[in-house]
Amino acid sequence: MNHDIAWPGSVRPGGRTARVRESVLQVAGDLLAERGFAHLDLAEVAATAGVGKTTVYRRWRTPAGLVADLLVEMAEQSLPRADTGDLLEDLTVNARLVARTLADPRQGNLFRAVIAAATCDDATATALHTFYDTRLTEWAPCVDAAVARGEAPPGTDARAVVSAVSAPLYYRLLASGDPIDEATADRAARVAAIAAAAGAFVG
Amino acid sequence: MNHDIAWPGSVRPGGRTARVRESVLQVAGDLLAERGFAHLDLAEVAATAGVGKTTVYRRWRTPAGLVADLLVEMAEQSLPRADTGDLLEDLTVNARLVARTLADPRQGNLFRAVIAAATCDDATATALHTFYDTRLTEWAPCVDAAVARGEAPPGTDARAVVSAVSAPLYYRLLASGDPIDEATADRAARVAAIAAAAGAFVG
Repeated sequence: MNHDIAWPGSVRPGGRTARVRESVLQVAGDLLAERGFAHLDLAEVAATAGVGKTTVYRRWRTPAGLVADLLVEMAEQSLPRADTGDLLEDLTVNARLVARTLADPRQGNLFRAVIAAATCDDATATALHTFYDTRLTEWAPCVDAAVARGEAPPGTDARAVVSAVSAPLYYRLLASGDPIDEATADRAARVAAIAAAAGAFVG
Repeated sequence: MNHDIAWPGSVRPGGRTARVRESVLQVAGDLLAERGFAHLDLAEVAATAGVGKTTVYRRWRTPAGLVADLLVEMAEQSLPRADTGDLLEDLTVNARLVARTLADPRQGNLFRAVIAAATCDDATATALHTFYDTRLTEWAPCVDAAVARGEAPPGTDARAVVSAVSAPLYYRLLASGDPIDEATADRAARVAAIAAAAGAFVG
């Protein structure tokens, strides 16, 4: 995904264009969380954000285009990875961040809405995969550093370890409906760290 | 969920009522996999299945009612759990079953469609949670048996171990878009078994 899109009429970071984007994405996120992708309407987003309808249609074109840009912003605003010098601690920070996000009513609904939209819209699916790729790429160095420190064997698949931390939390959000809390997050991190140390993520 | 629903006009298991249900659910699954929940239309299901429209509306009432019954059937037809006498082997059988299901084009799309529908329809969400509850309850005794054999410590949360096997596969299906193959399945089982043996699922 291109993070350096020069919007038509863009002036400078932090200028009017950036403020318009911020307002529009805030409203889009609110509407997605409240009502889902099927009811995301560009004209309503424009009206609620106090932005001209033409501006919104010209910049984002479709609801899928709006969701794609929202995912770019979510990836940009996602916290940088931890670097505590200990794999279990790093993974626990990550797990608690994901758990807090998914357990938050607005954010949890927003992720549910975007994931649902991605099941029937290819552009949204691509944007969603890019979002997770950005996050996995951000956090994978925690595992590589742990391998360098001797906490896990060489050949450990860093991306798989980081995915294993998030996976049980998403499984609860989307499949089983079991509650997402800090104990669940801590266990997800513990399971991944122990399995990584034992070499379960090699090959 | 009530597995003993007496449909209006039901006669006996395997009779005409059972055949009507089978045809209708087959068509509903096909349409869901092809086009998603938003386009599931009871009249079209009836016409395609060669069943009277009134029968379909009377028995299933809404698209959500149809999906709920489809999930009951999917849970009924899900294979019984493995019992190989070894935790890693049992979990590997489960992981490969889930991976084959999610990697199958029709079944993968069907799960995506139902999970998407559950994000915006409470009745479908309840039916989906019941489906996973049925599967987790079916497979949990593999872990309890492993604890009894001394392969994992007492207090191991069997449901969490079984969830941990499926979770990375669903994460690929719904979030990261990474491919789902047998190697992924085997690793998911290995990670869960090793972490369980190390006591990571206690507490």
